Amino acid sequence: MSTEYLQPVSWKQVQIEGGFWGPRIQTNREVTLDYQYEQMERTGRIDNFRRASGRKKGEYEGAFFNDSDVYKWLEAASYSLGVYPDKELENKVDKLIKEIASAQQEDGYLNTYFILKKEKRFTNLKDKHELYCAGHLFEAAVAHHKATGEKSLLNIATRFADLIYQIFGPGKREGTSGHPEIEIALMKLYWLTKNRCYLDTAKFFIDRRGKGLVGGNELQQDNIPFRKQKEIIGHAVRAVYLMSGAADVYRQTGDKTLMDALVRLWENTVQKKMYVTGGIGSRYKGEAFGEDYELPNDRAYAETCASIGSIFWNYRMLQLTKEAKYTDIMEKTLYNGFLSGVSLNGKRYFYQNPLQSNGTHQRANWFKTACCPPNIARLLASLGGYFYSISREGVWIHLYGESRATISLTRDRKIVLIQKTNYPWDGKINIKIFPDAQTSFTLFLRIPGWCQNVEISVNSKLIEEIPIPGSYFPLKREWIKGDNVQLNLSMSIDFLKMHPYSSNNGRLAISRGPLIYCIETADQPNIDIFNVLLPPDVKFSPHFEHNLLGEIIALQGNALLRDNFRWKEKLYRTYQNQGRTKAIPIKIIAVPYFTWANRKIGKMMVWIPIV
Amino acid sequence: MSTEYLQPVSWKQVQIEGGFWGPRIQTNREVTLDYQYEQMERTGRIDNFRRASGRKKGEYEGAFFNDSDVYKWLEAASYSLGVYPDKELENKVDKLIKEIASAQQEDGYLNTYFILKKEKRFTNLKDKHELYCAGHLFEAAVAHHKATGEKSLLNIATRFADLIYQIFGPGKREGTSGHPEIEIALMKLYWLTKNRCYLDTAKFFIDRRGKGLVGGNELQQDNIPFRKQKEIIGHAVRAVYLMSGAADVYRQTGDKTLMDALVRLWENTVQKKMYVTGGIGSRYKGEAFGEDYELPNDRAYAETCASIGSIFWNYRMLQLTKEAKYTDIMEKTLYNGFLSGVSLNGKRYFYQNPLQSNGTHQRANWFKTACCPPNIARLLASLGGYFYSISREGVWIHLYGESRATISLTRDRKIVLIQKTNYPWDGKINIKIFPDAQTSFTLFLRIPGWCQNVEISVNSKLIEEIPIPGSYFPLKREWIKGDNVQLNLSMSIDFLKMHPYSSNNGRLAISRGPLIYCIETADQPNIDIFNVLLPPDVKFSPHFEHNLLGEIIALQGNALLRDNFRWKEKLYRTYQNQGRTKAIPIKIIAVPYFTWANRKIGKMMVWIPIV
Repeated sequence: MSTEYLQPVSWKQVQIEGGFWGPRIQTNREVTLDYQYEQMERTGRIDNFRRASGRKKGEYEGAFFNDSDVYKWLEAASYSLGVYPDKELENKVDKLIKEIASAQQEDGYLNTYFILKKEKRFTNLKDKHELYCAGHLFEAAVAHHKATGEKSLLNIATRFADLIYQIFGPGKREGTSGHPEIEIALMKLYWLTKNRCYLDTAKFFIDRRGKGLVGGNELQQDNIPFRKQKEIIGHAVRAVYLMSGAADVYRQTGDKTLMDALVRLWENTVQKKMYVTGGIGSRYKGEAFGEDYELPNDRAYAETCASIGSIFWNYRMLQLTKEAKYTDIMEKTLYNGFLSGVSLNGKRYFYQNPLQSNGTHQRANWFKTACCPPNIARLLASLGGYFYSISREGVWIHLYGESRATISLTRDRKIVLIQKTNYPWDGKINIKIFPDAQTSFTLFLRIPGWCQNVEISVNSKLIEEIPIPGSYFPLKREWIKGDNVQLNLSMSIDFLKMHPYSSNNGRLAISRGPLIYCIETADQPNIDIFNVLLPPDVKFSPHFEHNLLGEIIALQGNALLRDNFRWKEKLYRTYQNQGRTKAIPIKIIAVPYFTWANRKIGKMMVWIPIV
Repeated sequence: MSTEYLQPVSWKQVQIEGGFWGPRIQTNREVTLDYQYEQMERTGRIDNFRRASGRKKGEYEGAFFNDSDVYKWLEAASYSLGVYPDKELENKVDKLIKEIASAQQEDGYLNTYFILKKEKRFTNLKDKHELYCAGHLFEAAVAHHKATGEKSLLNIATRFADLIYQIFGPGKREGTSGHPEIEIALMKLYWLTKNRCYLDTAKFFIDRRGKGLVGGNELQQDNIPFRKQKEIIGHAVRAVYLMSGAADVYRQTGDKTLMDALVRLWENTVQKKMYVTGGIGSRYKGEAFGEDYELPNDRAYAETCASIGSIFWNYRMLQLTKEAKYTDIMEKTLYNGFLSGVSLNGKRYFYQNPLQSNGTHQRANWFKTACCPPNIARLLASLGGYFYSISREGVWIHLYGESRATISLTRDRKIVLIQKTNYPWDGKINIKIFPDAQTSFTLFLRIPGWCQNVEISVNSKLIEEIPIPGSYFPLKREWIKGDNVQLNLSMSIDFLKMHPYSSNNGRLAISRGPLIYCIETADQPNIDIFNVLLPPDVKFSPHFEHNLLGEIIALQGNALLRDNFRWKEKLYRTYQNQGRTKAIPIKIIAVPYFTWANRKIGKMMVWIPIV
C-alpha cells in the first residue's frame, strides 16, 4: 500500500455515543439488527442455507440473490460486535456462520440458489449475481475477522475466493460479474490476507468489463470498457460499486488509467447527475442514471443502496487524494440521501428516496429485493470508520460528531481524540486530544464546502488564519494531553438554486449545514403544501425542537400560499401577464429531509417554487 | 345500434387531397406503406407466415407479437385501397392474404409464433399477446372487406373469431387478454357480420378484467375490475385500447356502468395525466401512466401508439355523447402527440415523444417492437373517417381540412361536402354543400375549445349568434346545391401555463390554433436553446415559411438568452435575492412540435421558462 494515500482508521477505534449519531447507531444495534434477522428468517433467507446443507427440507425460497442479504446482515452484526460486545448477538452470528459453513460445497463453492436449484454454476454471470453474492460473503468475512479475530467465516470466504481464482483469470475462464461488488470484496480479502490471487482476480474482473462478456449493456456496466467511460450511466448501484472497486485496485496498483476514469466519472456524477440530497440514479427504469440534469423530484429513484455506494466511492476518493470535495459529497449523502432510507425507529425503509411526494410514497417493513435494509445496517454499524484517517503528517478529521477515537499514529504512538458536539444541529465542535506522550503532528480539520464562516481555537486561542471552505485546515503543533481544539462552523440557513437546465428552475431548496430540509403536511396540516411559495426575500430561522421527530432543529419562515381556485380541474390555462400569482402570507415549518415520512401520511416537497 | 349516438361517416366517403393532410396522407400511401412492407420482409415478419404454412423453412423470427405488425400494415393498406385504388398495392395485399391464409390452422387458429414454436395455445394470455394479435387480424379483415368488398381476409378472421368464441366465454374457459385490443376488433366484426357471438365475447373479455386472470397487475389492466377503476393507471396503450373497446361495448349494450367508468377515467386522464401535446403515459418504466401531474418533459414516454389509442377513445366518446370536449382532445393529439411520431418523409418514427430533448432522442427507421410505425400508417390512411358523423338531425363536422366528402344522410339523400381550407395554418374554412336535392338538416360546426373568436357566414351572410368555444354550433336550414358556409376561426398565438403541481410551473408553452410549438436548435444554431427565457409580456408573430419543414407557419418572437457563466460546472448554487436573471434580448423562432427532429440533431424544448 503506497504511503502517499490516507490510511483508514478502523471503525473499531471509534466509539460513537450521544450526539447526532449515537442514538441512531444504538437503534441500529438494538432494534434494526434483531428486526432484520427476523425478517430474514421469516422470508426463508436463512432457511435457504439450512436447505442447501440438507439440514432442512424444502426448495429454494425467494429471489436468486437473497444470500447477499444474509451476508450483509452478518457484516453489519460483525461491525457492531467489534465496538459493542454483545454475547447474544455473538451467539446468533456464530450459529449463522455454522449454518453457512454447512452449506458450503466441498470445493468451496457457496450459493444456495445454485446449489438448491441445481443450476449450472457460473453460466449466467450477467443476471444471476453469483459473484455479487460471493463478494458480500467476503466483505462479511473480513468484517467478522477484524471484529472478533476469528476465522470461522474468513475460512469459508477464502475457500470460495480460491475457487473463483482457480476458475477465472487470464488464460482461464473469461468473465466478469453482471453486478459489481466482488472487486471491492476481493480487495478487502487481499489487504487482509496479502494473497495476491485476490488482487489479480479483482483487477481481472475490472479489466474484463465492457467486452460484452455479461451482455454488453449499460445495466451491467458492460457496454464500454471502464477506462473508456466518459459518462456515468446504467444501473446506479452497480456503477458506484464498480467505482469503489476500481478505486481500490488503483490504490494498490497505481494504474493511473483507472484514476483518470474515476475522476472523469465523479465529475460527471457530481456536476450533472446528483440530487441535492446526494441521491443518485434518477430513473426507475433500470434503476439507472439519467441524462445530464435529468433529476425529477417526484420520480427520483435515488436508491438508498446507491447513496451507500456513493459514500463508499467518495470515501475511497478522499483517501486517495486528500481532497475535501469528496468529503463534502460523502457527508451530504450521509445526512440526506442515505439517512432518509431508514425510519427513526429503525424498522421501516425506503428503497427510493424521492424529493417530492403526494403522499403515496411510503416506507416499507421489508422488500422482496431487500438489498437496502441490511446495507443501511452495515453502514451505520461501521460509521466510525468514516470519521478519521491518518497520514505521515498526522490525523485527518472527516466527520464531526460526538465520539471517542483511539488512533495509532505510529506503531508506538496512540492518540485519543474526543469530540464533544451536537453537530450538525450546532456548529460548535470541541475536540480534546490525548496523545500518550507529547507528539508533533498535524491535525487536519475538515472545513465543509457549505460553511462560509469558521473559527478555530486551540486551547481557547483563536487561530488567525482564515480557513477555506471545502478544504482541510492543517493545525500543526506539539500536542500534549488535554489539548483542546474548538471549531465553530457557522450554521447558516441557505437557499439553493439548481442548474437552470434542470426542472427545478424557479425553485429553492433549504439547507442548514449539511442538512437539506423539506416541508411536510404533518407540520402544516391545514394547507396543501404543494401550494407553498417562497418570497424572493425568503428568510428562515432555526428552532430547537426537543419533541419533534426525535430531536431536531426545525426551520420556520414566511412563505405564501398560492390560491389555486382558478385551476380547479384544469391542467392547462392560457397565460395572461397579470403579474404576481395570487397568494396569502403564511408561516411554514421545514424539517430535515432525512426525517420525512415518519409521521402521518402526507405530502412532502424539497424544491419549493419562488413566487 | 342505438340512434341516439352519432353515426360514423366512413373513411371511404372522404377524399383528402391538398391542404394540411393531403400531402401527408399521400406520403403515407406512396412512401410509408412500401417502406414498412420492406421492413417487415427484412425482419422476417412476413416470413413467419410462410414458415408457419410450411412454404418456407426456418424458425420463428423476432418478438412473439410480430404478427400484429403485419395485420396493422394490412389494415393500413386496405384503408388506402378503399380511397385510392392501386393495382400494385392490391396485388401485394392479396398475395399477403394468401400467405396468411396458408398459415391458418384447420380449426381456424392463427398465430405464427405459437404455431412455429409449438407452444401450447392460450396458456399465457397474460404475456403472449395471442388475443391481441387476433384482434389486429380482425381489424384488418373488417377494413379489407369494407375497402374491397372481398371476403378473403374476413373469412380467415371469422374462422379464428369463431374458434375463440368456442373456447372462451361464461361456462367455457375463463380469461381475458393481457393486452386489450381484441375487444375493439370483435365489436368491429360484430357490427359488420351481426354475429352476436362476437359481441358476447367482447363483453366477456371486458367483464373478466381485474379478476387476476392475467396476473392481476396494473400493466395488464388487470388489478381492478374495469367498472371499479377510479384512476387511469398502468400501461398506457393497453389502457386506451381497453377504453375504446369498453366504449364500443357500451355503444351496443347501453350498459351505463361502463360509461360511468369511461367518463371518470377520461376526466382523470385529461385533468391530471395528459401532456399539452395530447401525449399520455409519462413513464418509461412499464410504459405507464404516472401519478397525477407526473408529466416530465425530457423523460416523457408519450408513446405514439398511446396517442393513437387516445384518438380512438376520444372519437368513440364523441360519437356517444356529441360533446366537443372529446373532439378537442382528439384534435390536439392528432396534430401534436400523434403526428410527431412520423418524420416528414414518412420513413422515420418516434416511439416516445418527449417535450424536451438534449439532442439524444432521435427518430428510428424501425423498431424491434414495431407497434408504432404501422399504427401511424393505419390512422393516416383512415383519417377521413374522423372528419364527419351524422345523426338524425344532420351532419357533424369534427375536423377541418381540405377534403371532399359524400355523405349519405338518409337512404335516399346524399350530400357532397367540400372543404376548402389551409387549416390549421389558416383559420378560414370554406365549406361548399351539395345535397342531391334541397334538404333540411342541421350542419353542426365544431368550434374548437382554444378558439376565442369565430365568425360564421352562410352564403356570405354573417350569422349573428356568437358560437361558444368547445361546442358544436348548429346551422339549421334548407340546404341547396352550392350553399356556402364560411367559418373564420381566430388563430391567435396563445401561451399556456401548466398546473402549478406539475414541474412546469414558471414555464410557458406556445400554441397557435391546435398546434403546440417548440424551439429547436436548427432555427437558432448559435445559441443554446436551453438558455432561452420568455419575458413576462411575451409576444410572437406568425410567419408563413414555404421552404421550412415542408411548409409551415413558424412563430417569431422576442425572448432573452440567459447568461449561464456563473453556473459552469456547478449543479447547485446558493441563492441570493439579486432580482432578475442576467439575460440579453434575442429573437427566437418556434416551429410546430410535430415537425421536430426532422433536421440536424439538436436540442428541443416545448416548455420555456419565463424570466
